Amino acid sequence: MSTPKHARYESRGPVPHDVIHPVQFELADPAEGECRVVVLAAPVNPSDVLTLTGEYGQLPPLPAVGGNEGVGRVEQIQGQAHGLAEGDIVLLPVGCGSWSTHLNLPTKALVKLPHDVDPVQLSMLTVNPPTAALMLSDIVDLQPGDWVVQNAANSAVGGYLLQLARKRGINVLNVVRRSSAVEAVRQAGGEHVLVDADDLPKRVRDLVGDVPVRLAVDCVGGVHTEHLARCLVPGGTVVNYGAMSGDRCMISPRYLVFNDIHLRGFWLAQWFRQASPERRQALFAELAGLVADGTLHARIQASYGIEHVRDAIQAAASGARDGKIVIEPNGPSRAAI
Amino acid sequence: MSTPKHARYESRGPVPHDVIHPVQFELADPAEGECRVVVLAAPVNPSDVLTLTGEYGQLPPLPAVGGNEGVGRVEQIQGQAHGLAEGDIVLLPVGCGSWSTHLNLPTKALVKLPHDVDPVQLSMLTVNPPTAALMLSDIVDLQPGDWVVQNAANSAVGGYLLQLARKRGINVLNVVRRSSAVEAVRQAGGEHVLVDADDLPKRVRDLVGDVPVRLAVDCVGGVHTEHLARCLVPGGTVVNYGAMSGDRCMISPRYLVFNDIHLRGFWLAQWFRQASPERRQALFAELAGLVADGTLHARIQASYGIEHVRDAIQAAASGARDGKIVIEPNGPSRAAI
Repeated sequence: MSTPKHARYESRGPVPHDVIHPVQFELADPAEGECRVVVLAAPVNPSDVLTLTGEYGQLPPLPAVGGNEGVGRVEQIQGQAHGLAEGDIVLLPVGCGSWSTHLNLPTKALVKLPHDVDPVQLSMLTVNPPTAALMLSDIVDLQPGDWVVQNAANSAVGGYLLQLARKRGINVLNVVRRSSAVEAVRQAGGEHVLVDADDLPKRVRDLVGDVPVRLAVDCVGGVHTEHLARCLVPGGTVVNYGAMSGDRCMISPRYLVFNDIHLRGFWLAQWFRQASPERRQALFAELAGLVADGTLHARIQASYGIEHVRDAIQAAASGARDGKIVIEPNGPSRAAI
Repeated sequence: MSTPKHARYESRGPVPHDVIHPVQFELADPAEGECRVVVLAAPVNPSDVLTLTGEYGQLPPLPAVGGNEGVGRVEQIQGQAHGLAEGDIVLLPVGCGSWSTHLNLPTKALVKLPHDVDPVQLSMLTVNPPTAALMLSDIVDLQPGDWVVQNAANSAVGGYLLQLARKRGINVLNVVRRSSAVEAVRQAGGEHVLVDADDLPKRVRDLVGDVPVRLAVDCVGGVHTEHLARCLVPGGTVVNYGAMSGDRCMISPRYLVFNDIHLRGFWLAQWFRQASPERRQALFAELAGLVADGTLHARIQASYGIEHVRDAIQAAASGARDGKIVIEPNGPSRAAI
């Protein structure tokens, strides 16, 4: 077994890659009811970066190990197997500190996944796909044929959202902030792609006509929130889930008052607290199947070993990415399985 | 009878008092089913100013006569009286062009009001009191003992809101943007008054402790919207009904996402379209009674005759007022009745 290492931070600060370091740790034997898991892949999500800077809505006590989600391979089972066997591929529980070569985890908390699927794609199952799925299902009652507009369409959530919408027969207007991002959205399955600007509503009309858009999905903030709001029919809703511009969400009173536009947020962590176990299981079973059959797929920009976690964080925090940053703590997982 | 005059505009433009003029007009005899009404008082509301600049959500065809609401005295009834008599004080129908010395109006559209109440106070019944009442009742289900925070507390709607809230047993945190406005809010019945600042949530805690505020009422926009949002409990709602700062409403994604803050607007015109006649009548009967018994009362800054309508508009459009601007087309109404 390679030397156990994880990405640990003892403080938070404005430069996220400055506070975290790869460090060796003492890996105990798994206790009764635990599995030892070799971590194969774990993404760096925007929420991970905000946790390092201290800007996220819930922060673990310090010191902490980074990483909220990921996929591993069962190496050793101590006690009852709960249907698992050594060598199985499993989804790690949320918030487990997944940027680690190895983890001892409660066996009951592990969900078995298929063997023949890219573990990097599976490692992103817990955070972004349900965020996209729930914003499509829980904010506005959308029916097949309805229209949605989203910005940051080239983000991971954006890609999942358009793939899920297509499967549900919902039309998506995909907005990006730079023309160099258009092609990536097309490749991810986006039919209608627009570059954001003050005249976005006119561009939408020019592209697809006067379609009734009832939901806008905003990950950018600033005036970009208003650009989406102006594409909506009266009574429409903007749901925000991120702050890529670093600016506050802005909407003129005229759209709130005269057009009855609603603005709210979506936070998966809050949904987790409120949803029934049955609903959670049903959603993840559906999404795992869609990742396994290739319906859901995210572009990967780069993968890093645990030694290079600081480079991974720096890459994830930079603005103009074209894909996800992933940590493969034990090296490229395609070789590891 | 004095020469009939009204305040007329043939175009809209950025300087609202430039587009409107007092002009003589030919007053026909009332037709069958109409009353001739002498207008006693009609306020200048922010929506009137926005109608002159073209920024309001619904605009009458040009040319048009200004003024949306007001109170008059019946001078002549042509045909069926519908319970009215000459000399009765009546509420004018919404959107009638109330900045006029005289109007011929459908008798059925007039609502009889008490004689012994200041017609200036009655003239403001249609727009601001229902706006305040409905924002208190229709956005969040508030119970006696609950807390609300509002800015522009020294505005007419702000005054009505705190008076109505007190009557319903709801506690109001009143926010103003300048310390010179504090005393006016206290005189209007405001118990808790704060000057807006970035540390508003802390000031609220210092003043009244950690009270659960579920509704914020925003008439200002800009970062002031966020100041209110930060005073709310998770799941709370900000309702906006005006744009006194001229800036977009701003709320950081962190409050939308992590605190589940909702932002929406309220527009009385939209409520009028949707509410049943029974609900409208019940609301106005209640509010008229509260104006008549003095529970609802707005401060008046100045009153203008129809000749000085341009001065009235200029005064109404200026920022730092301490009361309402009213037009008394035929001169001070206290003398006219």
